[in-house]
Parts: sequence; C-alpha cells; structure tokens
Amino acid sequence: MTRILGIDPGLNATGWGLLEIAPDGAAGLRWGTIRPPEGPLSDRLNNINWRVKELIERHRPDSVAVERPFNHRNVKTAVTLGQAQAAAMIAAAAFGVAVHEYPPRQVKEAVTGLGSADKAAVKQALIARLGLADLDAPADAADALAIAFCHHLMTPIEEKLEIL
Amino acid sequence: MTRILGIDPGLNATGWGLLEIAPDGAAGLRWGTIRPPEGPLSDRLNNINWRVKELIERHRPDSVAVERPFNHRNVKTAVTLGQAQAAAMIAAAAFGVAVHEYPPRQVKEAVTGLGSADKAAVKQALIARLGLADLDAPADAADALAIAFCHHLMTPIEEKLEIL
Repeated sequence: MTRILGIDPGLNATGWGLLEIAPDGAAGLRWGTIRPPEGPLSDRLNNINWRVKELIERHRPDSVAVERPFNHRNVKTAVTLGQAQAAAMIAAAAFGVAVHEYPPRQVKEAVTGLGSADKAAVKQALIARLGLADLDAPADAADALAIAFCHHLMTPIEEKLEIL
Repeated sequence: MTRILGIDPGLNATGWGLLEIAPDGAAGLRWGTIRPPEGPLSDRLNNINWRVKELIERHRPDSVAVERPFNHRNVKTAVTLGQAQAAAMIAAAAFGVAVHEYPPRQVKEAVTGLGSADKAAVKQALIARLGLADLDAPADAADALAIAFCHHLMTPIEEKLEIL
C-alpha cells in the first residue's frame, strides 16, 4: 500500500487529500479542508502546521506532495501561498516524510493530459483514472487529491515497487 | 525585564538577536545566525523552525519581531523569504508568543530616523542608542537586533510597564 498526502496550500483554506494505492491498483481516498480560524498570520500558519502534523500522525503517508505557488504575478498573494505551503512542508519534514513540489500546470497535465485543464476536467479525470463512482470532494480537497495523484504518476515504477 | 527576539529571515542565513531591556533602560544583547544545512527546502525550513523554537525555549522572549519580506520585485525571492519568515513565525506561535512584523524600511526609520539608512548607519545607531561600547555582530544578526529594537520603540509605554 502506497500512501500519498496531497496538499493544496492556502491561508484561508488548505485542501488535503490522502490517496492510498493498493498493490492491485485499487485506490482509497480521504480528504478534507483545513480552515484556520481568524487571527494573526502567525497563529493561522501554526494552525495549518499542526493540523497537517495531525494528518501525518494519523495516516502515516509515505510522501507528501504540495502545490508550488509559482505563476502568480501578485507578489503578496505568492508570498502568502508560499507561507501556507511552508507550514505544510515543515510538518512533513518534522516527521521525516519526503516532500515533493509540483506547479499547478504540471498537476493538471499529469492528471488530464492538458496543462490548461479546468477544475471540472481535473475532477472528471480523477474519477475516470481512479475508477471512482463519483467524487464529491470540495474544490480545495479535489485539487489536493489531484496533486497526490500527480505525484503517484511521477514516481518511477521501481520506487513504487520498493514501497509496496 | 523585557525580552524581544528579533528575526531577519533567510533560507541560507536567518539572523537572530535577543534584546533584553531592564527597567532602568540598560540593554543586554545576544545574537547569532541560523544556517540550515544544504538539503531539500522542506528540511531547511524545518531546521529554521526548530532552531527558533530552541531559542524561544532557552530565552523565553516576551515577543518576537520579524522582518516582513515585501519590497521585492522578484517573486521567487519574496516567496523564499516569506517561507523562512513563516518557519520563524510558526515557532513563536507554537509557544504562544506574539509575533510582530516590520518592513525593512520601517526598521531603518525607527532605529536611525532614515528609512533609506545603510547597514553601517543602522549598526552605529544601535551602538549609540543602546549605549554599547561596540557591536561585532555579523550583518544578519545586527539586522535582527535592529528589528527587535524597532519593536521596542514601537511598543506603547503602557504595554512596556505592564510587562516590566
């Protein structure tokens, strides 16, 4: 069983999605959204940090995949996303879990074949490729699942066999 | 005794400076530089996070003051500085210590009277205003001490008395 925790970082809403892939290819999913309460930036980042730590303690992922905040023209937005991402990365590193970063375009391309795919297309591709009946995850969590699935697709076969 | 921990965040070098102000105005200083070992971004951020946690556990500051990475035209540089800042902020928030952010210009203006002051002028102003014989702190640590002193100057008198 390979477990990948995907994280779509954001200060108001950090989506998470746990993807479990069994040796026979069957997939199990869990997801949710971390919504830090209103308050100082430091407290909100700390909230994301310990919530992600809780997720790692509970689900013991083999790796963590996070969205890299890159294609933002607005510096302030990019800094804030980078800080939410840092909160998640620090949580993983504190448990010695490897962290992999993927830019949004790469996630979309890996999952759907098209770097410019919209959210609906990403969700449809997840449903089809993971053999799901449906996926009623909210947008942030669906993005996080897509990031986790992207990491699964990017991981070389040898490494997957070693984990299994 | 008021203790302020100033942080000048950076991925390669995070300067820190502890400023202790006694009720009679006498100042005590400690400083250093956190240099995360080479490695993945997540491990380097985690290193900054736990080193700052160590400093807070050892020195028990009343507040933490950090430089806010704002006036950068390069988005990638701003994101990296923001992430190093986040690592320090999360450490403070985990101990329930209040975090205050100051942009570089405000720090220089508060300490020297001039927002465009250079590093030498900031160091000279610290020496003069804190009544030091000399200050042989490296640049990152001197910046961190300036941030801590800026916070001291910005704190209303009533709040200082309450702390003392």
